[in-house]
Amino acid sequence: MQLLKDRIRRDGKIKAGNVLKVDSFLNHQMDIELFQEIGREFRRRFADAEVNKILTIEASGIGIACVAAESFHVPVVFAKKTQTKNIAGEVYTTKVESFTHGRVYDIIVSKEFLGRGDKVLLIDDFLANGKALEGLAQLVGDSGAELVGAGIVIEKGFQAGGERIRSLGIRLESLAIVESMDEKTGTIVFRGDES
Amino acid sequence: MQLLKDRIRRDGKIKAGNVLKVDSFLNHQMDIELFQEIGREFRRRFADAEVNKILTIEASGIGIACVAAESFHVPVVFAKKTQTKNIAGEVYTTKVESFTHGRVYDIIVSKEFLGRGDKVLLIDDFLANGKALEGLAQLVGDSGAELVGAGIVIEKGFQAGGERIRSLGIRLESLAIVESMDEKTGTIVFRGDES
Repeated sequence: MQLLKDRIRRDGKIKAGNVLKVDSFLNHQMDIELFQEIGREFRRRFADAEVNKILTIEASGIGIACVAAESFHVPVVFAKKTQTKNIAGEVYTTKVESFTHGRVYDIIVSKEFLGRGDKVLLIDDFLANGKALEGLAQLVGDSGAELVGAGIVIEKGFQAGGERIRSLGIRLESLAIVESMDEKTGTIVFRGDES
Repeated sequence: MQLLKDRIRRDGKIKAGNVLKVDSFLNHQMDIELFQEIGREFRRRFADAEVNKILTIEASGIGIACVAAESFHVPVVFAKKTQTKNIAGEVYTTKVESFTHGRVYDIIVSKEFLGRGDKVLLIDDFLANGKALEGLAQLVGDSGAELVGAGIVIEKGFQAGGERIRSLGIRLESLAIVESMDEKTGTIVFRGDES
């Protein structure tokens, strides 16, 4: 998605440790008009998928998922990260390992809001090691719902998550795949643009 | 907002301890078409306010804020709840006491995304004791931005938050104010509808 790649090149900041900061438009301050374009692009790519629910994970996936949902005309459910139970009743739950925060947390979705008959599209802002996305896919599987695919805004193509998710047979559409970044020169190479 | 009150009466669940569960459409599963109506209503109520930024707090405020932002044509910033620093650089920060979770946490906003010249509308899903909203107002004040008001989807009128926020001189627009709830009969009385 060229608009997104241009925006990442313009406003993204490369930091030590292969960190790409896009918090001026994607995951702290949020450019809602960009989110609308992202939503339309997800809709275009999953036009054949008969999505009837979008599942994301708190916190930074929620805004993108909600705006994208307008293009699909479906509700959104967000999985909660928790170390305490704040939802009464029964939930689907799995553990996710966070490299960023160096700990394991539980993610939960109420059984009321995910189940047989749902055709679920996962949406998230970033895909790096893929643990969060794998956790969401696990919840969908546990619920008996059908996983139709995953839409990611930025995939870090040099980390293992994308390959792992694709190897699980999940249809993955990443709108920008960062193949490499150079902190010193500020250069970002996207997959498909290497030449 | 009649559409919202009707929805709360239909799908809200009253639980012990004055808990109103609206997680089927507001804060776990999210009805995006309802959010669009909510956004238009906030826009109508703050039409004169020249809002140029919306500030909310993770997690359940984000979806409403992002969809509402489409009616205002402004970006959204969400304050992060944190016990670790996950944003590089300088931040505005304050402490918020959570009654639900029985602990104090820090909320932070990067100084890059809030400051002089911003006319900020706060948006959140719930107002009960008002601590989160007060924390957000504090961050706006610290940043030198102008606080134009706060838009709340559901205010618990029988808790102290609304009165406290209004007494601070903050223009508060709550789309549904629950005056009382009865767990046994399932009855909800909204402010203005008592007769």
